[in-house]
Amino acid sequence: MITIRPATRADDEALWQIFQSVVAAGDSFVFDEQTTREQALAYWFQPEGHAYVAENDGRLAGSYLLKPNQPGRGSHIANASFMVSPEARGLGVGRHMGEHCLAEAARQGFRAMQFNIVVSTNEAAVRLWQQLGFRIAATLPGVFRHAQLGFVDAHVMFQELGDAPKGTV
Amino acid sequence: MITIRPATRADDEALWQIFQSVVAAGDSFVFDEQTTREQALAYWFQPEGHAYVAENDGRLAGSYLLKPNQPGRGSHIANASFMVSPEARGLGVGRHMGEHCLAEAARQGFRAMQFNIVVSTNEAAVRLWQQLGFRIAATLPGVFRHAQLGFVDAHVMFQELGDAPKGTV
Repeated sequence: MITIRPATRADDEALWQIFQSVVAAGDSFVFDEQTTREQALAYWFQPEGHAYVAENDGRLAGSYLLKPNQPGRGSHIANASFMVSPEARGLGVGRHMGEHCLAEAARQGFRAMQFNIVVSTNEAAVRLWQQLGFRIAATLPGVFRHAQLGFVDAHVMFQELGDAPKGTV
Repeated sequence: MITIRPATRADDEALWQIFQSVVAAGDSFVFDEQTTREQALAYWFQPEGHAYVAENDGRLAGSYLLKPNQPGRGSHIANASFMVSPEARGLGVGRHMGEHCLAEAARQGFRAMQFNIVVSTNEAAVRLWQQLGFRIAATLPGVFRHAQLGFVDAHVMFQELGDAPKGTV
């Protein structure tokens, strides 16, 4: 049973654990091992953002950050980052969070959602975002330094949000 | 005679003047009138970045910021922001800075340069970047809130940097 609620600073340690595991894989997140606990949590709890956590039977299974993709004249477009705990893979936590995030972005009045660097070799993620209504707007060559594969392509993915955005719960 | 040198904190007031004039136009920069002097200068002098100023006969005519487009696993791709003083338009300051910026990015070892939000209605800028070797990788619908035109499209523009990047001096 997956539930989603706003993150609080009481989640700091659990979030830092998940953050480190995602960073260690080096296959999806731009942040690398240089990122400190303080930097990671400052990013996740940035004033312009809204962080949520997914719990599976009361245990933290993942988290996402919803925020404006740009300041000022670009702030009507949402951006989001997602982390899933290694122990919670295959439970649909990512899909659950993605649907929640799209609904929340629409509710907050964002006009569209944009992902800037979806790693092309992370095929499960690309497929999930496409299923939730995103299209690949661009494929940028070699922009992600993959821990195993070296420089790989990444996608800019985009979808407009309406009164009834695709993929919402 | 246009010359380019690294920006210093002695340029703060002149940079803030140019920043405000570019922001007031509301047709090219994502930053809007909400941006404070402190925020603007903190952005321009961010630790990961390198800011340069262009002088025309000893007077500040423009400035650019060269920085990584992403942290960590995306930090081998450069990003840059440009401002030209309203009094210095039409003198080739933008082109001069663009060429300098591409050469500097290559010198610093960046593998490519990416612009995330080039306003489509800013045709002079789009043309200039194309002339300097950038291609339009994506056109994102309505992602820029133009002061006069409302929501307009913006381009993601991209070019690889090599030993002899296009458009360098």
